[in-house]
Amino acid sequence: IRSKLPDVGTTIFTVIGQLAAQHDALNLSQGAPNFDPDAKLIDGVTRAMRDGHNQYAPMAGVGALRDALAQKVEQLYGARYDPATEVTVLASASEGLYSAISALVHPGDEVIYFEPSFDSYAPIVRLQGAMPVTIKLSTDHFRVDWDEVAASITPKTRMIIVNTPHNPTATVFGDADIERLSALTRNTGIVVLSDEVYEHVVFDGARHHSMARHRELAERSVIVSSFGKSHHVTGWRVGYCLAPAELMEEIRKVHQFMVFSADTPMQYAFVEALRDPASYLGLAAFYQRKRDLLANALVKSRFELLPSEGSFFMLARFRRFSDERDSDFVLRLIRDARVATIPLSAFYTDGTDSGLIRLSFSKDDATLLEGARRLCTI
Amino acid sequence: IRSKLPDVGTTIFTVIGQLAAQHDALNLSQGAPNFDPDAKLIDGVTRAMRDGHNQYAPMAGVGALRDALAQKVEQLYGARYDPATEVTVLASASEGLYSAISALVHPGDEVIYFEPSFDSYAPIVRLQGAMPVTIKLSTDHFRVDWDEVAASITPKTRMIIVNTPHNPTATVFGDADIERLSALTRNTGIVVLSDEVYEHVVFDGARHHSMARHRELAERSVIVSSFGKSHHVTGWRVGYCLAPAELMEEIRKVHQFMVFSADTPMQYAFVEALRDPASYLGLAAFYQRKRDLLANALVKSRFELLPSEGSFFMLARFRRFSDERDSDFVLRLIRDARVATIPLSAFYTDGTDSGLIRLSFSKDDATLLEGARRLCTI
Ligand SMILES: CSCCC(=O)C(=O)O
Ligand SMILES: CSCCC(=O)C(=O)O
Repeated sequence: IRSKLPDVGTTIFTVIGQLAAQHDALNLSQGAPNFDPDAKLIDGVTRAMRDGHNQYAPMAGVGALRDALAQKVEQLYGARYDPATEVTVLASASEGLYSAISALVHPGDEVIYFEPSFDSYAPIVRLQGAMPVTIKLSTDHFRVDWDEVAASITPKTRMIIVNTPHNPTATVFGDADIERLSALTRNTGIVVLSDEVYEHVVFDGARHHSMARHRELAERSVIVSSFGKSHHVTGWRVGYCLAPAELMEEIRKVHQFMVFSADTPMQYAFVEALRDPASYLGLAAFYQRKRDLLANALVKSRFELLPSEGSFFMLARFRRFSDERDSDFVLRLIRDARVATIPLSAFYTDGTDSGLIRLSFSKDDATLLEGARRLCTI
Repeated sequence: IRSKLPDVGTTIFTVIGQLAAQHDALNLSQGAPNFDPDAKLIDGVTRAMRDGHNQYAPMAGVGALRDALAQKVEQLYGARYDPATEVTVLASASEGLYSAISALVHPGDEVIYFEPSFDSYAPIVRLQGAMPVTIKLSTDHFRVDWDEVAASITPKTRMIIVNTPHNPTATVFGDADIERLSALTRNTGIVVLSDEVYEHVVFDGARHHSMARHRELAERSVIVSSFGKSHHVTGWRVGYCLAPAELMEEIRKVHQFMVFSADTPMQYAFVEALRDPASYLGLAAFYQRKRDLLANALVKSRFELLPSEGSFFMLARFRRFSDERDSDFVLRLIRDARVATIPLSAFYTDGTDSGLIRLSFSKDDATLLEGARRLCTI
């Protein structure tokens, strides 16, 4: 068998999850809550199933959910998306990334993205016979160097993938980022693929710079988001994307063959959930408190914490033994402190070591406090 | 925008579904039940959600579900699959087809498949930069001409896609089909991708020829199936695939980036459902009765019914006006008789007309009888 992804192993989330289970470690690795969603949301799914919503949903998503999403996006970001042609419900944000890249990136195209990054972008691009062009974020503050982006654009550049709030570095885009991105892609035919799954998790009063806010940029953007992170149900596979109709037409062509339609009863439950904006508007404060709880509990540790501006994550600098790799340190943490985290090196295709680990604070308070206590023993 | 699928429009199921709604037509088109699943199954999902199974499932699927699937396959087909490395739960059979083809078919490869066929095979192959090689089933009995397959195999042939019971023609493979397929692919490096979503729906006492039954053929087969058709929940997106470990390793690499994991509470519900084999062992009788109900009610119609050996479908020959295309007739049926069906031409990439429509009998009895009554008016 000739592998199409010879360098790809099992995703880091699976590897660390298995190690955590083996060593009975507290799991601060994946961005998944270890607490329950609102009981009303669960009741919504039950009601939908009992009401007979158990067969294929429309390929583009349940109509009422597309309407509710368009309304939400208009209220939050002042953007108008036509639910009939510009909003599509998907079986996860992952499927959104996969179908957008598959639909829009041709063999031989170049796709610019930034590292460290979520681990799916580059493999999906490679599976299209296209070329991922990696730009490393500077390791001291993890900002995008837009001059470097400008220098990396070629006639083959087809797409730039951005992600704000950013997994794994917890940075968020500001006005200047949007302006440069917009200027660099104007009149180029480059599509911006914007992964915004942490859109509601921006801290300290800052606001989320959705591509949807910026009318002109939105015209060449595909925005991917999901309910998993906003409603504490990462295992209910419902995401969505927003895009201008001519891009969406191509994305739907792929989506219809990739999973055809997303889970029906869960889509109905999210229609109800979106009627209550408090369900996601309170999310930033909810997670900011968790961020601070963890950070405070780590004050006396030997870790240096980097600022977390958004997302479920925080980076922590550890004191390494000479030559100790990020992944060695993470193994040591699992074994000796019984806390599972992700080495930042896992978010680089070349495995760059930075002496940093990623902590997830999407956990109940007791887990965060016990995790911090254990981390203080290292 | 340069489309990667310029010839592909919206899937026929969406088009016909919309027309049916517009004309308030009875829908005998899609292979989706219009009745409810077992209440126990719904309760199983509710229980799983209340028990806190709401976050990411393991990438390969909930362990207990993979174990239960391996047991079922061993009992039914005498095949041993290792749940750790040879069984993967997916977000639908569609995702199984997409991820298997994406993982195993390289640009420039050839993939043999048969038409008429389910509409996703050829586009997925083309999206890999590979070449679909179409073999038409003979229109009088829709059998595979294995000599034609033999003549179509080249050094570039990487995969043969089969589907039994067959959508849309309702034929099933017999011993001779398996023997020829096995002989033709022995020692070739060709992978057999077997779409077996209707595995439990084989009529008149015949048995389903799963590739899993045939040890040597199974070693080069990827088998895709799903719970949607076996448990009357096509909108709960949980499918699975079986494959030897070395093929599965590549499929999982793609699956982990395509949707990462399938719906968690629904996976738990299916673990329980599999404890009760009656839930799927009774399916053939259940649908055979529906097939016969519809067929009997059509005896006095002007349609000639073709034999249905398995699946949710039956083909019916209509008396065409001169030059009337399958799709014109279907429009006429929707408008004049208010019954929606699928033209057989939709299952051919070149739109071949055969004077046949596909009827789905996965409907409650009242719908079947009323549908037949209306069909008798044409
Ligand atoms: C499929 S993992 C999704 C992202 C996430 O939860 C993480 O980065 O931990
Ligand atoms: C996504 S449509 C799946 C197959 C089916 O139901 C049909 O062929 O009607």
